[in-house]
Amino acid sequence: MKKINIGMVGYKFMGKAHSNAYRAVPMFFPDAAKPEMKVICGRDPKGLEQARAQFGWESSVTDWRELVQRDDVDVVDINAPSDAHKEIAIAAARAGKHLFCEKPLALTLADSREMLEEAEKAGVKHMVGFNYRFAPAVQLAKKLISEGRIGEIHHFRGVFLQDWILDPSFPLVWRLQKEIAGSGSHGDLGAHVIDMARFLVGEFREVIGMSETFVKRRPVAAAMTGLSAKGGGSEEMGDVTVDDATAFLARFENGAMGTIEATRFAAGHRCTNGFEINGSKGSIKFDFERMNELQVYFTDDAEDVQGFRRVLATDASHAYMDAWWPAGHTIGYEHTFTHEVLELMRALEEDRQPVPNFVDGVKCQEVLEAVDRSIEERRWVAISEL
Amino acid sequence: MKKINIGMVGYKFMGKAHSNAYRAVPMFFPDAAKPEMKVICGRDPKGLEQARAQFGWESSVTDWRELVQRDDVDVVDINAPSDAHKEIAIAAARAGKHLFCEKPLALTLADSREMLEEAEKAGVKHMVGFNYRFAPAVQLAKKLISEGRIGEIHHFRGVFLQDWILDPSFPLVWRLQKEIAGSGSHGDLGAHVIDMARFLVGEFREVIGMSETFVKRRPVAAAMTGLSAKGGGSEEMGDVTVDDATAFLARFENGAMGTIEATRFAAGHRCTNGFEINGSKGSIKFDFERMNELQVYFTDDAEDVQGFRRVLATDASHAYMDAWWPAGHTIGYEHTFTHEVLELMRALEEDRQPVPNFVDGVKCQEVLEAVDRSIEERRWVAISEL
Amino acid sequence: MKKINIGMVGYKFMGKAHSNAYRAVPMFFPDAAKPEMKVICGRDPKGLEQARAQFGWESSVTDWRELVQRDDVDVVDINAPSDAHKEIAIAAARAGKHLFCEKPLALTLADSREMLEEAEKAGVKHMVGFNYRFAPAVQLAKKLISEGRIGEIHHFRGVFLQDWILDPSFPLVWRLQKEIAGSGSHGDLGAHVIDMARFLVGEFREVIGMSETFVKRRPVAAAMTGLSAKGGGSEEMGDVTVDDATAFLARFENGAMGTIEATRFAAGHRCTNGFEINGSKGSIKFDFERMNELQVYFTDDAEDVQGFRRVLATDASHAYMDAWWPAGHTIGYEHTFTHEVLELMRALEEDRQPVPNFVDGVKCQEVLEAVDRSIEERRWVAISEL
Amino acid sequence: MKKINIGMVGYKFMGKAHSNAYRAVPMFFPDAAKPEMKVICGRDPKGLEQARAQFGWESSVTDWRELVQRDDVDVVDINAPSDAHKEIAIAAARAGKHLFCEKPLALTLADSREMLEEAEKAGVKHMVGFNYRFAPAVQLAKKLISEGRIGEIHHFRGVFLQDWILDPSFPLVWRLQKEIAGSGSHGDLGAHVIDMARFLVGEFREVIGMSETFVKRRPVAAAMTGLSAKGGGSEEMGDVTVDDATAFLARFENGAMGTIEATRFAAGHRCTNGFEINGSKGSIKFDFERMNELQVYFTDDAEDVQGFRRVLATDASHAYMDAWWPAGHTIGYEHTFTHEVLELMRALEEDRQPVPNFVDGVKCQEVLEAVDRSIEERRWVAISEL
Repeated sequence: MKKINIGMVGYKFMGKAHSNAYRAVPMFFPDAAKPEMKVICGRDPKGLEQARAQFGWESSVTDWRELVQRDDVDVVDINAPSDAHKEIAIAAARAGKHLFCEKPLALTLADSREMLEEAEKAGVKHMVGFNYRFAPAVQLAKKLISEGRIGEIHHFRGVFLQDWILDPSFPLVWRLQKEIAGSGSHGDLGAHVIDMARFLVGEFREVIGMSETFVKRRPVAAAMTGLSAKGGGSEEMGDVTVDDATAFLARFENGAMGTIEATRFAAGHRCTNGFEINGSKGSIKFDFERMNELQVYFTDDAEDVQGFRRVLATDASHAYMDAWWPAGHTIGYEHTFTHEVLELMRALEEDRQPVPNFVDGVKCQEVLEAVDRSIEERRWVAISEL
Repeated sequence: MKKINIGMVGYKFMGKAHSNAYRAVPMFFPDAAKPEMKVICGRDPKGLEQARAQFGWESSVTDWRELVQRDDVDVVDINAPSDAHKEIAIAAARAGKHLFCEKPLALTLADSREMLEEAEKAGVKHMVGFNYRFAPAVQLAKKLISEGRIGEIHHFRGVFLQDWILDPSFPLVWRLQKEIAGSGSHGDLGAHVIDMARFLVGEFREVIGMSETFVKRRPVAAAMTGLSAKGGGSEEMGDVTVDDATAFLARFENGAMGTIEATRFAAGHRCTNGFEINGSKGSIKFDFERMNELQVYFTDDAEDVQGFRRVLATDASHAYMDAWWPAGHTIGYEHTFTHEVLELMRALEEDRQPVPNFVDGVKCQEVLEAVDRSIEERRWVAISEL
Repeated sequence: MKKINIGMVGYKFMGKAHSNAYRAVPMFFPDAAKPEMKVICGRDPKGLEQARAQFGWESSVTDWRELVQRDDVDVVDINAPSDAHKEIAIAAARAGKHLFCEKPLALTLADSREMLEEAEKAGVKHMVGFNYRFAPAVQLAKKLISEGRIGEIHHFRGVFLQDWILDPSFPLVWRLQKEIAGSGSHGDLGAHVIDMARFLVGEFREVIGMSETFVKRRPVAAAMTGLSAKGGGSEEMGDVTVDDATAFLARFENGAMGTIEATRFAAGHRCTNGFEINGSKGSIKFDFERMNELQVYFTDDAEDVQGFRRVLATDASHAYMDAWWPAGHTIGYEHTFTHEVLELMRALEEDRQPVPNFVDGVKCQEVLEAVDRSIEERRWVAISEL
Repeated sequence: MKKINIGMVGYKFMGKAHSNAYRAVPMFFPDAAKPEMKVICGRDPKGLEQARAQFGWESSVTDWRELVQRDDVDVVDINAPSDAHKEIAIAAARAGKHLFCEKPLALTLADSREMLEEAEKAGVKHMVGFNYRFAPAVQLAKKLISEGRIGEIHHFRGVFLQDWILDPSFPLVWRLQKEIAGSGSHGDLGAHVIDMARFLVGEFREVIGMSETFVKRRPVAAAMTGLSAKGGGSEEMGDVTVDDATAFLARFENGAMGTIEATRFAAGHRCTNGFEINGSKGSIKFDFERMNELQVYFTDDAEDVQGFRRVLATDASHAYMDAWWPAGHTIGYEHTFTHEVLELMRALEEDRQPVPNFVDGVKCQEVLEAVDRSIEERRWVAISEL
């Protein structure tokens, strides 16, 4: 069986999720190429060593430049904060390494495009971490649409609702700082909705948006990690430089209408990555908080029993599920990463580009940036303008 | 168009619901025979006159004996407290009046049987008020079962959960006194579940139950009306002489298994008259708190989209709904009575027995009493024993 | 008790809903002024007489000019097709009649304003039929917001989703013709969402929208009534001249962000008039298909039991519900009209303007037209521009 | 950090679930003692080796007698078919090994008691695999009850509904044969409900049940594994010797009433391990198909916003969840085993009995057997009789 050596940069929230996926693939998908957890990279030696031991990596380095040059690394997995993606990815590509990069690819569209270009020039494989595609219920949505069972799509209604920064005393973590995160809810959450829309509906034609930062100053965080801030806020206050919420209207190439909204101020929503699609022959609804379920409606159901079906996408007939547990025995968030890594392994084995890859990362960034421009210039912006 | 004269005994909760139904039938089902609201009867002249004017009855009397003898009365509607049903029904039948009696028919099975016998002897039509049959979603359940779309029934799981007497300081209203109410949650709520089971699954073969009175003494109510007690509780305490909750196992004639439970101590449930039926080809779920919805599952749905459908039974194809509003525009509790009165009108027009009638009332009482006996004697009791 | 004489113009879907409300108010709210159903008006004598008899009106006329002049009419209820509203309303106002007009007030903002002006000049009372405000669950939403229990509002997410014209063979009824209906889903459904937003969130500041007509030609309807078309479609085809769907972004005066969408192409949705409001202290969700329920979330719930509560707004503590049935015994669509008429009766008794009135009608129309202009000119339009 | 050596007997469905848990504990709960996956045991060398490699065990043996004697084994994990539990457990206990045994402990109560006795005599730790206790939502239910927030319990309504053998052509797998499985839905699924009831409500006092085998003969399975049958059914038919469904009434020691039902014939239910508990101060609902959610109702919520809350038990404040992902990022079925193994690790570290242990296994079996006897003798059976 083929083995593929992984070097990973980043060891916080995403580093943990990716590590778990590398461990899970060989156990649940033993026929796939096996990821070997060769080396993990981070700047803080103590935290790094703890992560290495806990997550099960063979070795660690504190300089990513060293990692991307190692002979025993086939794939460089980049899940460091967003502002570091570009430099690492390009160096890795130039070193001939395959790339597995968390979203967003980079802080700007220009940077994303450069990353794609370099990857293509180097002839390496590249993947971007839109993990939500890999929920079996989402895969089912894709299948139904691809097979024409929902018909022609009229509407896409997508939201990503969270509430973790609703409290004004929540500190100024890196995700709220433009120079590191690039964007707020729009780039963090909206990016997932945009990718979902592209995956299921098709390409965007034009957009117009609005955004807001409801809480404009927050306590400076003493120490920041993942989604939370250790040590609470200090008395010092700093400016929030990203959006708390962004919403936009969209027109798709195929004529479908879209409304998309991302916010971290939706009280009561912890992780509502949700969408509804209405087609000429049926509809589909999804909410990640119930990630194993897909609501499906067909217009051609018998007249007296028409209604949304709650499909529990855990049957052996659903994507990936024959590898897990019997029907009705649900899976969770982390499994989306396992399936994502599985796609990476299979693509490398089959010598093809994984999907989604940097092309998808760039196209997502185009939409993100078109929305930003539409907000700034208060007008519809065509994706083709970018 | 045929007109049918109604005389009604009772003017509280049920009197109001019935009156509303008499008013609604001519407006929403103009092709049916028209109920004429001739005379209403109650013991308290002041309350009676208020009800007469408010509900729209032509006249009133304080003595039901007078009412049952009036020439301008075709149907006697009996919704006085349960202990009065028998005497009124028999007198009315002997006077040649058709009978429309609230459930339970009487305090005992023997009394119920006598009522049925007298009605049959008099050759009058008779109906019993199992109104929940008349929710369009329940009618849909009946249709699906009758057409074999759920297959052979394996399981019936029925509950009627309320919580209105959960608070121990709630007063000792008449519904908590055996000499007036006959029974507690069992006869009041369980009766509806039993009727639903008979309607949808078939006849009961044998039962075994248990029951409990969780709060054994309560403040004596100053004045009682409908489901509530005016004037709150006094300091005087009295014994609760009926069950707070009764549950039982059942075996149906067709081999299906049943679990049935009625309680007024299910915190958070205001009116969960619910059931689930599992058959060899599908399943059905219903909860009266969402009375316009039926959940339906079919085993022969395509493999990848199997799941309970939430059918909103408000389409024109659903029972009664073409008489109401466009699809999706829901109806409420009171409409079950309108449909019930419609059945009464149609049956009288067509010179046939309405359904459900006193036979159903007696059969329900048989099951109620079999359960009571099974509790007393701590053994399975066959319905045929009674 | 005060009696108020009603003359009603229109006898189809809305005429039926209003008639039912006039009949219900005296029965369920006997302390309110009593509407007397004096005269009903329509153009087709045969259909009119049938409606008169069925709905219970004392008399009928085929010319609304006659109706508005009658001495025995205090209130003119206008629910004829939208293109007739203005002329009737102004004539009625000039005749000193109070006005109760279905939404939208008129086909254009200018016309609406003229109607308001005339009503004010005549010193009559005026009401507009935004019936969804009167669902008890919506009243509860209003109460929670007014009492500050949801905090400062950040987001409004409103939709009105239907699917009754999804089938391309559905005929070209009057609601699909601009000259009669004025607008499609936007004016018909979107108007309700806009009113809901104004009721709960506050005034709109600026909007930008998009719209679409997915099915551009349809069979000409042989005869049209209410929401459906009798006689099916003919072979002749005609142009659909209104929008099938309209969506827009909104900024409210108080800074809240809004996304609003109305469509008749949302397969599986019969009547999803739904909204979600996110505030700094909690959230609220509503879907008219479950009109008795309100989902409520509070940020100050104990840490381990935070979650959306499904409040069944049928307790005696909820608006209007002590007049109906015991807790848990639901009401339906028609009850929103009963409560609306109740507000009209109470306002007339108390000699005050009912709410919502023509001011609300005009303000709704301002938003509708701002959206239309934003679509035409592809730019943000401030309400203050109109 | 302490390391604990595991030897595991069984490598099918449960073997996979346990193996995954051993791998997950060190990664997600690095402070706990670390399970070392020393040796796995099975009868078929080929399948065993595949499992060993796939699951990550150091070595394998085909004879459990060898495994229980190995010096490098601290804990013997027994998840072979139920008929093998007793012999292995007793041998392991006598060899001084701690025991981790899947439910049911044994085929009979007598055997279970012997196992407990031997374990106690040997002074080893013992745990039984009631994994559903370890869902964070169930832990929350336990916490709410323990803290008195639901008050005194009146009702327990528990079901375990599946549908995997509804099709009569599904083959005669070992779980349908009494000599291997001991029991059908009752022992397999009902056992989980009984344990849940004991965990949350308390001890059972008396029970009465009924059961049914709806499909009495099935095709003999060519090869059997886990929950499914490889190779489909042959033409040969064999007798189903266990129950397809069992339901029973229960009275708890504390006076609460219970209804419990387990079936494999509930069409549409893949894994509805669900319960509802009604107390004097609130209610709790759970359905394993939505395992991250707990529905909670409190009677002391403000009057106008009473309703079941849907608590997503994924906040850091919920049991185990700070070790996983941010709030709203759900976990799945397998995580119950991870938490179960965590309890085992902690108990061994702290030199205490894990919970649930063989005492719970025996008490569960007492109830199972009391129900069996009540069915056979058609009478209430007190647990104390056994």
